[in-house]
Amino acid sequence: MTIKNTFEIFPVGIIHNKDQSTSIEIYQEFEEALTGLEDFSHIIVSAWFHQHDKDDLRKTLKVFPRKDKSNPLTGVFATRSPVRPNLMAIFYCRIISIKGNIIQIDFINAFNDTPVIDIKPYIPNGDSIPNAKVPEWVKVISKPE
Amino acid sequence: MTIKNTFEIFPVGIIHNKDQSTSIEIYQEFEEALTGLEDFSHIIVSAWFHQHDKDDLRKTLKVFPRKDKSNPLTGVFATRSPVRPNLMAIFYCRIISIKGNIIQIDFINAFNDTPVIDIKPYIPNGDSIPNAKVPEWVKVISKPE
Repeated sequence: MTIKNTFEIFPVGIIHNKDQSTSIEIYQEFEEALTGLEDFSHIIVSAWFHQHDKDDLRKTLKVFPRKDKSNPLTGVFATRSPVRPNLMAIFYCRIISIKGNIIQIDFINAFNDTPVIDIKPYIPNGDSIPNAKVPEWVKVISKPE
Repeated sequence: MTIKNTFEIFPVGIIHNKDQSTSIEIYQEFEEALTGLEDFSHIIVSAWFHQHDKDDLRKTLKVFPRKDKSNPLTGVFATRSPVRPNLMAIFYCRIISIKGNIIQIDFINAFNDTPVIDIKPYIPNGDSIPNAKVPEWVKVISKPE
């Protein structure tokens, strides 16, 4: 594996996701960076799949989506699997409130204590692509279980 | 600044954006991770704002969006500014073709040679939020120049 260079990233906050509370705590030294975020309805949360931070997982290039072997063996860049070379997670969340350094959100599909790397505002002109095409295996997620 | 921990990321590819060619080159050792991506129409590209990788820029918490002082002084987490603690960029691109380790795309608002950190498929059920609200200063981008 040719590593051209490396970059250092660090948590700017942490995801709280247990009981009935779902929120993002931004560490106080970064609270100022939230100024104006209350004027948006949704955010893009970049996080770190910390539970998968193991060398062998970061070297895995193909997976069965959703660990279901009836799905086609697929490259990790064609899935949202937490197993990937850089453990970047992206979540889209609705803001319920922002009080100080705490962003209450409606829902996030992440483990409690997941480190947050970045927050961006969601801007539908550019971020929203309602007609984007996906393969069959993805559509199955919409079926009632 | 309290750094709780740091994580190491590395480029998995590079953005080519000059002349009439706009593409993402995934380094050959990661090519296999693209398997199945051709069944999607759009991708989410995570990249590194390498031209802003300076300590003082990473400590900047507020900016005037689009460097326009008539915009409100805004926290970087409420903007898409390349100035932010972790230099994460997110771009949404339409796939034109995938040949080997080269993804031809329609457009990307990134400098040539920007390092690519991750590729994910765009899945409108979850990623597309057409009615997300934004403040006035964002809407000005839609005006003809």
